[in-house]
Amino acid sequence: MRYEDWARGELEELSQTLGFRYTPREEIENRLTRLTKSMEKEGMEAFLVVQKMDCYYLSGTTQDGLLFVPLEGKPLLMVRRELERARVESPLEVVVGFKSTRELPSLIGDHWGRLPQSLGLELDVLPVRDYSRYQDLFPGTRFMDASPVLRDIRKIKSPFEIELMRVAGDIGKKVYQEGREILQEGMTEIEFGGLLEAAAKRYGHEGLLRVRSLNYEAYTWHVLSGPSGGIVSQSDSPMGGLGLSPAFPVGASLRVMRAHEPILVDFGTCYHGYQVDETRMFSIGEMDKKFIDAYNACREIHDAVLEETRPGADCEALFQKTLRLAEQLGYKDSYLGPPGLQTRFIAHGVGLELNEFPFLARGQSYPLEEGMTFAVEPKIVFPGEGSVGLENTVLVTQDGYEILTPLEQDIFQV
Amino acid sequence: MRYEDWARGELEELSQTLGFRYTPREEIENRLTRLTKSMEKEGMEAFLVVQKMDCYYLSGTTQDGLLFVPLEGKPLLMVRRELERARVESPLEVVVGFKSTRELPSLIGDHWGRLPQSLGLELDVLPVRDYSRYQDLFPGTRFMDASPVLRDIRKIKSPFEIELMRVAGDIGKKVYQEGREILQEGMTEIEFGGLLEAAAKRYGHEGLLRVRSLNYEAYTWHVLSGPSGGIVSQSDSPMGGLGLSPAFPVGASLRVMRAHEPILVDFGTCYHGYQVDETRMFSIGEMDKKFIDAYNACREIHDAVLEETRPGADCEALFQKTLRLAEQLGYKDSYLGPPGLQTRFIAHGVGLELNEFPFLARGQSYPLEEGMTFAVEPKIVFPGEGSVGLENTVLVTQDGYEILTPLEQDIFQV
Repeated sequence: MRYEDWARGELEELSQTLGFRYTPREEIENRLTRLTKSMEKEGMEAFLVVQKMDCYYLSGTTQDGLLFVPLEGKPLLMVRRELERARVESPLEVVVGFKSTRELPSLIGDHWGRLPQSLGLELDVLPVRDYSRYQDLFPGTRFMDASPVLRDIRKIKSPFEIELMRVAGDIGKKVYQEGREILQEGMTEIEFGGLLEAAAKRYGHEGLLRVRSLNYEAYTWHVLSGPSGGIVSQSDSPMGGLGLSPAFPVGASLRVMRAHEPILVDFGTCYHGYQVDETRMFSIGEMDKKFIDAYNACREIHDAVLEETRPGADCEALFQKTLRLAEQLGYKDSYLGPPGLQTRFIAHGVGLELNEFPFLARGQSYPLEEGMTFAVEPKIVFPGEGSVGLENTVLVTQDGYEILTPLEQDIFQV
Repeated sequence: MRYEDWARGELEELSQTLGFRYTPREEIENRLTRLTKSMEKEGMEAFLVVQKMDCYYLSGTTQDGLLFVPLEGKPLLMVRRELERARVESPLEVVVGFKSTRELPSLIGDHWGRLPQSLGLELDVLPVRDYSRYQDLFPGTRFMDASPVLRDIRKIKSPFEIELMRVAGDIGKKVYQEGREILQEGMTEIEFGGLLEAAAKRYGHEGLLRVRSLNYEAYTWHVLSGPSGGIVSQSDSPMGGLGLSPAFPVGASLRVMRAHEPILVDFGTCYHGYQVDETRMFSIGEMDKKFIDAYNACREIHDAVLEETRPGADCEALFQKTLRLAEQLGYKDSYLGPPGLQTRFIAHGVGLELNEFPFLARGQSYPLEEGMTFAVEPKIVFPGEGSVGLENTVLVTQDGYEILTPLEQDIFQV
C-alpha cells in the first residue's frame, strides 16, 4: 500500500479513536488574528515560525516544518516530515512539502508573490548557525525578533487551551492519589518517581515537559526525600535534589526513602502539549513537627497569593507579599531556598512551556490578566534536613481564580 | 546550618554513597589537551563553552555555568548555580561563582590577564539572542564556531566513557528481559513503555535522552504495535509511531496491543549522561511469518554491517552496502521506511547525545576510527501493518567491534 493513501484514510481514524483532539480552525484563526495585529504594531511584515511548540500553537501540528505567517494573506505551512500527517492535524489551508531549506524562498515567493522586507524569527531560541542560513537565503530581508510578540500572545489562554489544562490537572490528580498506593518504605526516590510517571502515562501524560531554553531540561521525577530535599542544584528552583549523577544532578535519586521523612513530589503533567505543575508532600508515617509546621506555612502563603489573584493584581507585588508573610511566619531564611541561594519567584506561567508569562517575581511588575495560567509554589528548605512545599496551577478568571489542579492539599501520609 | 558548610561536607559523601562517578582529573586533562590542539589549528585563542553536555564533557559538571578554555593557561569554570556542587563534581582547579553574564568579561580578564582576540562558541546550538549579548560583552573579540572542533573530539570515546556506556548497556539488558514479564495482552503501548522506563530508572537510567537540536526531542517510550509501527512522523527515523497527541506525535500511543502483532521496542538508556540505543521485537504469541522474515532480514543486514566494522571502513560505503543487501533480500521498498519517506542512515553515533559522529549514511564518506561508538538500526516498514527492526550500540575496536548492548537478539515472544 502507498503510504500517502494509507495516511489519508486510516491515520486520522486511528488517531481519533485513540482520543486525539485537533486544534479547531476557529481557534487557529483567532490566534493568527491576535498575532498579526501585534506584528503590524512592530512593523513586521511576516513571521517565519521555526520552533516546534510555536508551530503547534499557530498551526495545530508539530510535524517537522516551518510556518510562514504574513501580515496579509494566508499562512503557509511548509513540512519536511511528514506531510500527510501535518495535513490531517492542521486546519490551515495551504500545507506544502519540502526537502531542503534551500527551497524556502521559492516556496514563499510562489505562495505570497514576493519575499518579505522584514521577517520575524524566534531569536530567543533559534541557533546562530540556522540564523546565518536564513540570512543567506533571504539576502534582501531585514530580520526581527518575533519571540516577544508570540510569547505575549501565548500568555492568555483560550477556553480550548484551558480545557486541555483541566484534563492534565485531572490526570495529575489521579496520579497523586495512586501515589498513596505506590509509596512504600524501602523504595528509592527514583523508583517511586518512575512508577508515578508510568501511572501518568497510562492516562495519557506525554512524558516530556517543555521549557523554552537551551540548557534547562524539565522532567517529572522530582521526588526528594529527607536531606535530598535540602540540596540546591542547577535549576532555578528552591531545591534541585541530588539526581542520579553529575550528568543529571536534579530530581529523584537512588536514595532509599525512610519513615517520618518529608517526601516532596513535584510532578508536572502534559496533555496535548498543555502542562500543569503541582507539588504535594508525602510521608511514610507522620513527619516531624518542624516539617508539618513549615508545610502549613506554605499553605498559608499559597492561600495568600490566591486571595489576591484576579485581573489587575500586580505580579511583583504578589511576590513581595509572600516574602513579608514568610518572614512573619518565621521562615525568612528558609523560604524559597537557603540564604544566598533563594529563588526570586513564587509563580511561573505555564502552558505549552513551563516558563511562560506571567512570572510572579522580583522585577516583574505588570498586572495579571484574565486567561493567564500560572503555577504558584511556596517552598521552604532546610539544608541537610529536607524541604516542604505546595504547588498548584491556577487560571486567572474574570473576578478571581480557578485551580486547575483540584487535588486535596493535606499531606499524603501512608 | 549554612548551605555551603553542609554541601562541602555531606553532599559529596551522599553522592558517592549513591554511586555517583566523577570524571577523573586525568580524563578531563586529556580531553582539554585534544581540544586545545584542534583550537590551535583553527586559530581559536579561546573557547567559551555554553552548552550543558559540552560543559559536562570538559569540566565534569552540568551545574548551570560556562567554561572558558584558553589555548594557553588554565580553564576557568564560572558557575551561576550551584557553586559548591560544581566544586565537588569538577576536578578543574579554578571554579568561581557569578550572578549575571555581565560579570563574564571581568571574570575572564581577572583570570587570564586580558580578553581573547578570537573566541569560539557553539554556534550550532547557541540562540541568536544570547550570541548578541556575548557580542556586546566582548566588543573587541572575533567569534568563531567551535562546535565542529568539539564534536570532532567527542566522536572518539575514552575507556572511561566506554565503561559508562557498558553500564548503560547492562541496564538496558535487564530492562528488556523484564519486559518479558511486564508485557500482557490488552495493555496499551504507552502503559508498556511507561513500565519499561520505570524499570530502567530503578537501575539508574536517567530518564532524559539528549539530542543536539532545537526541535528534536528524544524519548524512550518508543513502543509501536501493529499499524502504529507503520506510521511515519516528524522524527528522522524509518517510523515514528502515533504518539499521544498532535503535540507529541511520536512513540507509544494509547493503542491496545494485540496477540500476533509485531511490537517494536526502541529503548535508549542513559547512565551518567552516556547513552546506548537498542531495539528488539516483542510479540504476544507468534507474529505473522511476514514480520518474522523481515526481522530475519534486519538481522542479516545488522550482521553485514558489523562484519565490516573496523577502523578504516568507510561510513557511506557501509550504508550503501545495506541498501544493496536489502534489495537482494526483497525489501527495497520497505527498508528504512516507505517509498519516498526512507531515511538515509543505517547508524548514528551515540554518546552524550544521540546524534554524534559517525553517521553511517548517504554523503558521509569518512573512515571509522577506533573508539567510535554508534547505534546500527536496520528497520523495515509496512504501512498499515507494522514494522520490525533490530538495533545495537557498538564500539569500534582496534581490529573489529564490541557490542555494548549485549542482549539476546531473538524475538521476545511472550
